Amino acid sequence: VAQHRQSIGLDLILKPVSKEFKELDGYFRSYLNTDVPLINSIFEHLLDSGGKRIRPLLVLLIAASSREKVTEDRFRLAVAVEFLHTATLLHDDVVDQSDMRRGNRVAYRIWGAEPSVLSGDYLYSRAFNLLVDIGHLGILDAISTATTEMARGEILQLLRSYSTATTVKEYLEVIHGKTASIISASCKSAAYLAGFEGQHLEAFREYGRNLGLCFQIVDDVLDYNAEGGVFGKAVGKDFLEGKITLPLIVLMDLLNKDERHMVSEIFLKDSPEKVDFKLIMRLMENHNALEKTMDVAKRFSSAALKALTSVPKDASRESLESLARYVLERRS
Amino acid sequence: VAQHRQSIGLDLILKPVSKEFKELDGYFRSYLNTDVPLINSIFEHLLDSGGKRIRPLLVLLIAASSREKVTEDRFRLAVAVEFLHTATLLHDDVVDQSDMRRGNRVAYRIWGAEPSVLSGDYLYSRAFNLLVDIGHLGILDAISTATTEMARGEILQLLRSYSTATTVKEYLEVIHGKTASIISASCKSAAYLAGFEGQHLEAFREYGRNLGLCFQIVDDVLDYNAEGGVFGKAVGKDFLEGKITLPLIVLMDLLNKDERHMVSEIFLKDSPEKVDFKLIMRLMENHNALEKTMDVAKRFSSAALKALTSVPKDASRESLESLARYVLERRS
Repeated sequence: VAQHRQSIGLDLILKPVSKEFKELDGYFRSYLNTDVPLINSIFEHLLDSGGKRIRPLLVLLIAASSREKVTEDRFRLAVAVEFLHTATLLHDDVVDQSDMRRGNRVAYRIWGAEPSVLSGDYLYSRAFNLLVDIGHLGILDAISTATTEMARGEILQLLRSYSTATTVKEYLEVIHGKTASIISASCKSAAYLAGFEGQHLEAFREYGRNLGLCFQIVDDVLDYNAEGGVFGKAVGKDFLEGKITLPLIVLMDLLNKDERHMVSEIFLKDSPEKVDFKLIMRLMENHNALEKTMDVAKRFSSAALKALTSVPKDASRESLESLARYVLERRS
Repeated sequence: VAQHRQSIGLDLILKPVSKEFKELDGYFRSYLNTDVPLINSIFEHLLDSGGKRIRPLLVLLIAASSREKVTEDRFRLAVAVEFLHTATLLHDDVVDQSDMRRGNRVAYRIWGAEPSVLSGDYLYSRAFNLLVDIGHLGILDAISTATTEMARGEILQLLRSYSTATTVKEYLEVIHGKTASIISASCKSAAYLAGFEGQHLEAFREYGRNLGLCFQIVDDVLDYNAEGGVFGKAVGKDFLEGKITLPLIVLMDLLNKDERHMVSEIFLKDSPEKVDFKLIMRLMENHNALEKTMDVAKRFSSAALKALTSVPKDASRESLESLARYVLERRS
C-alpha cells in the first residue's frame, strides 16, 4: 500500500515535465557521445540500475517555469548533472569497495577498478563539455564550485570514518558537500536557464540545498531500516563501511557513557557482524533514534518549502513542494 | 656532461618567463584552496616529487607573447592545466597500481586508493573552478574537450593492454588522447589569453599537439633505455604493466614471424621478469628499434617547429622552438 501511494506521488510530481523526463534516456545516450564500447557498456549498466534521477527532474521542473521556448540547454544541464552524479557513484564504489547498489552488482565488481575510475573521469569531462556548450558562466561557476565541494565532502567523509565522536555539524558539512551542493547548484543553474534573477536564483539554490540535506538524511535513515530486498536497498551498508551518519550520531547523544563506549567498541571492530548491527538497531529502537533523526530531516524539508514561498506559483512550484514532502516519505 | 648541457638548455628556454615560473609554487598552493589537511599533504607530496611542469611552462611562454599587462589569468590557466595533469597522475597510479613515480613512492602507496581517487577528483574540480574564474568560453571549450579525450585515451590504453597487435595508428590515438590533447589545449588556451585569433590560435594548437606526441614518444623510449636510478625513471615499467608503446610496435614490425610470436608469448606471461625484459631489450638493440622510434618522434618535433613559423617572432617563440628540440634530447 505504501509503495502504491508513493508511486502516485511521484507520478504527480513528474506531471509538468513527464514528456521531457521520458526523453532523458535518449539524451543520456546521445550526449555520452563515445565510440568506446566499454564506456557504453558501463553506462548502460548504470542506466539499467535505475537511479531516481532526482537531479535531472529538478532541472526539468525548474527550467519548465520559463515561458520561453524549450531549448536543448535544459537537457544538456539535466544530463550533465546526472553524469556528474554517476561519475561520483563510480568512484565511490571503488573507494567503498561496494558490492551492490540498488540491487545490482556495481560496475567496479563487474569491470574492475580501472574502468570504473576512468569511466567516471570520462563522465565528469563530458558533463563539463555539455555545460560549456550551454555557454553560461553563472551555471559553470555554480556547478564547478559544487563539484569541488563534492570532492571535499567525500574526503571529509573518508577522514571521519569510524570516528564515533563525529558531531552533527561535521555530519552536515559532509552531506552538504557530497549531496546537497550539487542538488543546490542544479536548482540554481536551472533557474538561470529559466531566466530567473537575483533573489529568485537564491531561493531555488536554497530550496535545493535543504532538499538535498533532507534527501541524504532520509537515505541515511533508510540504511538502518529499509525493507531490504523489496526495494533493493541493502541495510547496514554505512555501518559496515564505518560511515558515521546522523542516526548513529543522534543515538550516541541519547546513550549513557557505558552504552556509548560499547557502541564505539563495536564500530572499531575489525569485522563487525550482523549481530553487532542488530544490537545497534535495538538501541535505536529503544531510544527512538530514527524518529528523532527524521525530525531533523523534516526541518530541512520545511526549510525547502519555505524557500519556495518567494518564487512564482505555477505547476513547477507545486511539484517542487510535493517533492520536498515526498522525500520524507520514500521507503527506498 | 649530457645532464649539464640539458640543464643549460632548459634554463634558456625558461628565460622569458623565469620570474613567473618561480612564482608557480605559490600559486599552486593558494589556488589549491583547501582546509582539508589530507588534500594538502597529498598535493605537497606531488609538488615535492617535482614534475617537469611542461604544461604551465607552455602556458606562461605563450601568454608572455602578449603585449598586454600580465594578469592573474595566466597563472590560473597554468595552475589549472597542471592540476588536471596531476589529477590524471593520481588516478593513473591507482589504475596502474604503480609503486614509484620520478623516484618517489606514489601517493596511492602512501595514502591508499581512496584518497588518491578523491584528491584527483578534487584537483579536477578546482581546475575547472579556476578556468571558470578566467571566464573565457573558448578556453573552457578547449580544455573540457581535451579532458574528455584524456579519459577516452586512458580507457583505450587500458583496453589495448597486452595487445601486441596494436598498430601505430592505434598507439597515436591513445597518446593523442592521454598526452597531446591537453598540451595542445593548453597552448591554444594560452594563445587566447595572449589575444591571438584565427590561424594563430590554430598554429599554437598544432604546435602543442605535435610537441605532445613527440614528448610522449620520447617518454615511451625512455621507458626502454633511461639511465634508471640517476634520473629516477624506472626502466621497463610500461613493459611490466602490459602497455604496448611505440618502441615495441616498431620492433614487432622489424621481426620475423617466429620472433614476433616469441615476443607476444613473453608479453602474455602472467608475471614477466627482468630476464624477459632483457631479451626484448636485446632484440631492440639488434634491430635499432629505439633509434627508429626516435625518428618518429623527430618528425613530430619538426611538425611542431613548422607550426610555429606562422606566429610572430619573439622571445617566447624562440623558447618554444628550443623546447621542441629539447624534448628530443631529454634523458629523464
